[in-house]
Amino acid sequence: MGLHRVQVPGLAAELVLGPQATRHLHVLRLRPGDRVQVFDGQGGQAEATVETLEEARAVLALVSGTGAQDTRETPQPVTLAVALLKGDKLADVIRAATELGAARIQLLTTRHADAREIGAQKLVRLRRIAGEAARQSLRAHVPEVLDPLPLTELGWEGTLAFAHPGSAARLGDLLIWDAPLTVLSGPEGGLAEAEVAHLLARGAHAVTLGPRILRAETAPLALLGAVAATGV
Amino acid sequence: MGLHRVQVPGLAAELVLGPQATRHLHVLRLRPGDRVQVFDGQGGQAEATVETLEEARAVLALVSGTGAQDTRETPQPVTLAVALLKGDKLADVIRAATELGAARIQLLTTRHADAREIGAQKLVRLRRIAGEAARQSLRAHVPEVLDPLPLTELGWEGTLAFAHPGSAARLGDLLIWDAPLTVLSGPEGGLAEAEVAHLLARGAHAVTLGPRILRAETAPLALLGAVAATGV
Repeated sequence: MGLHRVQVPGLAAELVLGPQATRHLHVLRLRPGDRVQVFDGQGGQAEATVETLEEARAVLALVSGTGAQDTRETPQPVTLAVALLKGDKLADVIRAATELGAARIQLLTTRHADAREIGAQKLVRLRRIAGEAARQSLRAHVPEVLDPLPLTELGWEGTLAFAHPGSAARLGDLLIWDAPLTVLSGPEGGLAEAEVAHLLARGAHAVTLGPRILRAETAPLALLGAVAATGV
Repeated sequence: MGLHRVQVPGLAAELVLGPQATRHLHVLRLRPGDRVQVFDGQGGQAEATVETLEEARAVLALVSGTGAQDTRETPQPVTLAVALLKGDKLADVIRAATELGAARIQLLTTRHADAREIGAQKLVRLRRIAGEAARQSLRAHVPEVLDPLPLTELGWEGTLAFAHPGSAARLGDLLIWDAPLTVLSGPEGGLAEAEVAHLLARGAHAVTLGPRILRAETAPLALLGAVAATGV
C-alpha cells in the first residue's frame, strides 16, 4: 500500500495545514513521524513527514524534492465540456471524469437544458468532489470545474469532439494527441440544431458512440473512457 | 417523440400482458387505441395497438411485422465480465453497460472480492434494470445477467481484454470485430496475481486504461465506452 495522499495549498519546506486538511489527517489515523505524499493540485507533489498534529492544525515537513513531474496526466490536456444535469448526476460525472484524466471540466448551459443554472454551493461541492477523486486516483492535478458558460460561447484550443447520435466519425480516429482535446456532451434532451451547427461551423467534430441512446450522464464517461483506453 | 416501448414475453398477433407489464402501460398513461412498440428482449420488435386496458391485464394487437432485425447491436456480441461490487454499484454498471451495447453481463467472484455473493432477489433486480435500460436506449435485445462464476472458471469465445494497471497494450488495438469480445474488470482491490496469470495463460489480453487508478465501477464503463466509440 502506498503513502496516504494529502492535498496542500502549495509546496514548501514546511507546510502548515488548517482545520479541514488536519481533520483529513485524523481520519487517516496518521501520527507525528508518519510519512505522507502531499500534492498541490497543480501537478506538484512530494513526500512529507507529519511533524506536529493538533486538533485543527498540523505541520508537515517536506522530505523529497518539490514539483516532481506528474506522470499520471495525459500527453495533452483533455477538457470535458458537459451540459448541466439534474440532481447528483453531475457529481458522478465529475468523479469519473477525474479518474479518467480530464484536466478541466467546463460546465455548459444549453438550449434543451436539464438544469438552467447551478448554485454557488453546488459548485463548491463539485470542486471538492474533483479534489477527492484526484486524490483517490493518485493524480496530483485536480481538474478545474469552471462556471457554466452558454455552449455557443465555448472556445477551445486544438480538437473538439462532441457526441452526436447518427454521426459517422469515430472518436478513436481523432485521438492523435498532437493538440489539446475537448470532448463535449449535451443534456438529456440532446443538443439543439443551432448548437450543433455552431460547433460544426467552428470546426468541431461530431462523433458517434454507437447506434444506441445513451443517458446524458453515460455519454461523457464513454467519451473519456475511449480517451483513456488509448493508453494515456 | 417516438412510440413508448413495452417489453413482452414474446411476439404474437395478440399479446396478453400480466399485472406488471400492465402497470407499466398505466404509468405511461396509455389508453385503448394507442400505438406502442413492443419488444421481446431477444431482438424481436414490432408495433402494436392497445386493445384492452384493465387494472392488471391488457391486450395488445400487433400491427406490423414481427422479428424486425435489430440494428442497434454491435457487429459481434460484447460480453462484460465484472466482479461483484458492493451496494448499488453493480446496478449502475449494468444500466450503463446496457446503453453501451453489452450483449451479456457475466458476474464474477474474485479473490479480492468486494462482495462474496449476491442474493437471488438482487439478481432479479439487476435483470429488471437491464430490461429497463434496454428499453430506454432503444435496444430490442436485453443483455443477459448471468449468475456469478469464479473468475478462474470463466470461459470465452474470441478475444478477452481485461483492465490491468500498468499494461502496455491498448484496448483500441484489439477492436477488430472479427470475433466476439469479452471485456473484464475486477473488484475494488484489483485482480489477484493468480487470476491475472490464469487469464494470460488462456490467451487473454491485459489492457491499460491509463496511468490513473479507476474505481471498480468506472473501469467497466471506460472499457465499454472505448468499444462504443469505435462506432458500433
